Amino acid sequence: MKTRAAVAFEAKKPLEIVEVDLEGPKEGEVLVEIMATGLCHTDAYTLDGLDSEGLFPSILGHEGAGIVREIGPGVTSVKPDDHVIPLYTPECRQCKSCLSGKTNLCTAIRATQGKGVMPDGTSRFSYKGEMIHHYMGCSTFSNFTVLPEIAVAKIREDAPFKTSCYIGCGVTTGVGAVTNTAKVQVGDNVVVFGLGGIGLNVIQGAKLAGAAKIIGIDINPDREEWGRKFGMTEFLNTRGMGHDEIVQKIVAMTDGGADYTFDCTGNTNVMRTALEACHRGWGESIIIGVAEAGKEISTRPFQLVTGRVWKGTAFGGAKGRTDVPKIVDWYMNGQIEIDPMITHVLTLDEINKGFDLMHAGESIRSVVVY
Amino acid sequence: MKTRAAVAFEAKKPLEIVEVDLEGPKEGEVLVEIMATGLCHTDAYTLDGLDSEGLFPSILGHEGAGIVREIGPGVTSVKPDDHVIPLYTPECRQCKSCLSGKTNLCTAIRATQGKGVMPDGTSRFSYKGEMIHHYMGCSTFSNFTVLPEIAVAKIREDAPFKTSCYIGCGVTTGVGAVTNTAKVQVGDNVVVFGLGGIGLNVIQGAKLAGAAKIIGIDINPDREEWGRKFGMTEFLNTRGMGHDEIVQKIVAMTDGGADYTFDCTGNTNVMRTALEACHRGWGESIIIGVAEAGKEISTRPFQLVTGRVWKGTAFGGAKGRTDVPKIVDWYMNGQIEIDPMITHVLTLDEINKGFDLMHAGESIRSVVVY
Repeated sequence: MKTRAAVAFEAKKPLEIVEVDLEGPKEGEVLVEIMATGLCHTDAYTLDGLDSEGLFPSILGHEGAGIVREIGPGVTSVKPDDHVIPLYTPECRQCKSCLSGKTNLCTAIRATQGKGVMPDGTSRFSYKGEMIHHYMGCSTFSNFTVLPEIAVAKIREDAPFKTSCYIGCGVTTGVGAVTNTAKVQVGDNVVVFGLGGIGLNVIQGAKLAGAAKIIGIDINPDREEWGRKFGMTEFLNTRGMGHDEIVQKIVAMTDGGADYTFDCTGNTNVMRTALEACHRGWGESIIIGVAEAGKEISTRPFQLVTGRVWKGTAFGGAKGRTDVPKIVDWYMNGQIEIDPMITHVLTLDEINKGFDLMHAGESIRSVVVY
Repeated sequence: MKTRAAVAFEAKKPLEIVEVDLEGPKEGEVLVEIMATGLCHTDAYTLDGLDSEGLFPSILGHEGAGIVREIGPGVTSVKPDDHVIPLYTPECRQCKSCLSGKTNLCTAIRATQGKGVMPDGTSRFSYKGEMIHHYMGCSTFSNFTVLPEIAVAKIREDAPFKTSCYIGCGVTTGVGAVTNTAKVQVGDNVVVFGLGGIGLNVIQGAKLAGAAKIIGIDINPDREEWGRKFGMTEFLNTRGMGHDEIVQKIVAMTDGGADYTFDCTGNTNVMRTALEACHRGWGESIIIGVAEAGKEISTRPFQLVTGRVWKGTAFGGAKGRTDVPKIVDWYMNGQIEIDPMITHVLTLDEINKGFDLMHAGESIRSVVVY
């Protein structure tokens, strides 16, 4: 079949909206009509050529919501007309990782996903006879895409696509980091570094978990209003402050240090500050941000020996097929908010404008509605 | 009163055995006759001038066992003739840390302990009228010493001093890192870097916890026999191997990486290897070794984002007054061994020989019996 898609033919070039060829679903695969897709920093990271493993040409996008239109042989967990969210972290429920009960990082199709192809080693996308890579197993910048059955979460049909697509990455990453990875408890103190989309979702996750104090940190004063909207109780503008000053201020604000800190910046210096601002004896710092290739985190081991814990999280520790439908419920029940975060709604033809808004820091989330 | 003690008058000089003056216990303090004391790397670290916060003159030693001989006003938890192990990590059961239930790092007397004095700000030791510092709140290289009541663990009277003194630091640090900090479970795979006294105690802790595979790592082939004695199932001599090769070998030996790794070397490069040898998704690395001043640990944040956890432990996460008596029970019940680790028994006059044996790598543990 033919489908319209925004293709990344080369790094550092705008996406091109063209009609590409899409093969139907093979065994264990489903065809999904994407109804809406968010634009995430990870897409920009790849498009800007910063990901040393980025493949071109490819169809980016990994934060979508849509409707199953066709299923391949052997598919049993979804059927045509089901509403789904594509999962860049699948959940096969069979591999060592899934069966461990300790991680969401399913390894069933990791090798082929990293190579930009489907589990059988081939791509479903082509343009003028040339193969186009899948991206993060999703490629939601195409109106239609093919996904493995284990990489779609079935969701309730009354959830609007325009907002629930954001659960495909940003919402789950931020909220899940709090609920699955940190397991914040009622009364804990939480510090969030970086109040972009992920940081705001960490804030609302912390509020949902009953955190007593939710301190937001950014160097952009405009973010204070955003943070307070989602439950932030205090704001610290750290522009011009050094590492030690920030740590001291947080220690003072939290009676000795934070119970949990979250890095949502991707800056390795900030990651260190986030760790060292944790309370001696038990504070845990969770890295969410994706760092520049080659950058490393450092600290004195004494920080860990005296009880601080350094962790990270991917997709908010969420097991996609199991947890994503629950987060959709939380949204539909009003326990978390998404609508105010969708600052820009675009058509597919306007998708490059979405990246411009992101780079300018003007959007929290831009969504393309097909 | 007068007591014989090995005094560290200066860094990098041998200890001198002299008779010092000891004031009796003040309010909340107890006088303890030390019956035996181990010699630990931390004592050597301070004596060798590597600890930038080391104070001289002082009476080192922090791994002892003895008998309460006198109690000061207000002491209620121990009485004369009680057998006790001094605690360099006290347990006041009143401070924010103790009450958190999340850490053993009691802060009640931290400030004065770090300054080499008792909680009232003065020292009980003097020599020829000159004040001598306490060390780690213990000073077990003195036949008699004074300790705060909250810094002694009452233990059973049938435990021999010569071996149970080792529970005052090394045994608890290694075994506790497994049982309190990592919480190793039956069937887990464990990798131990560095098979000195701490490493051997980690091994026996892992055996006690039912670990399936216990891999010991050292560059000294003589350590293999030691490791196997305490439950090590496989040995890897990493002499001449680089970081990547060690990680690959461990990943191969553990079907993807270790569930838990323990650094018992204090070498920050080894700490990184220990982290990166952990299983993707859930492996946890515990830093036990004390690093050289100024040295830092580093890794790519991707290691944490993909589910590895970096932690540390001090005194094996043990709450001294509560947990040390239990570890003494484990020893007396035969659940853990200590006797074979006490490779050298010395008199106080021979104490400098004990440090020579340590530096030469010839002892697992030397103990001074008074």
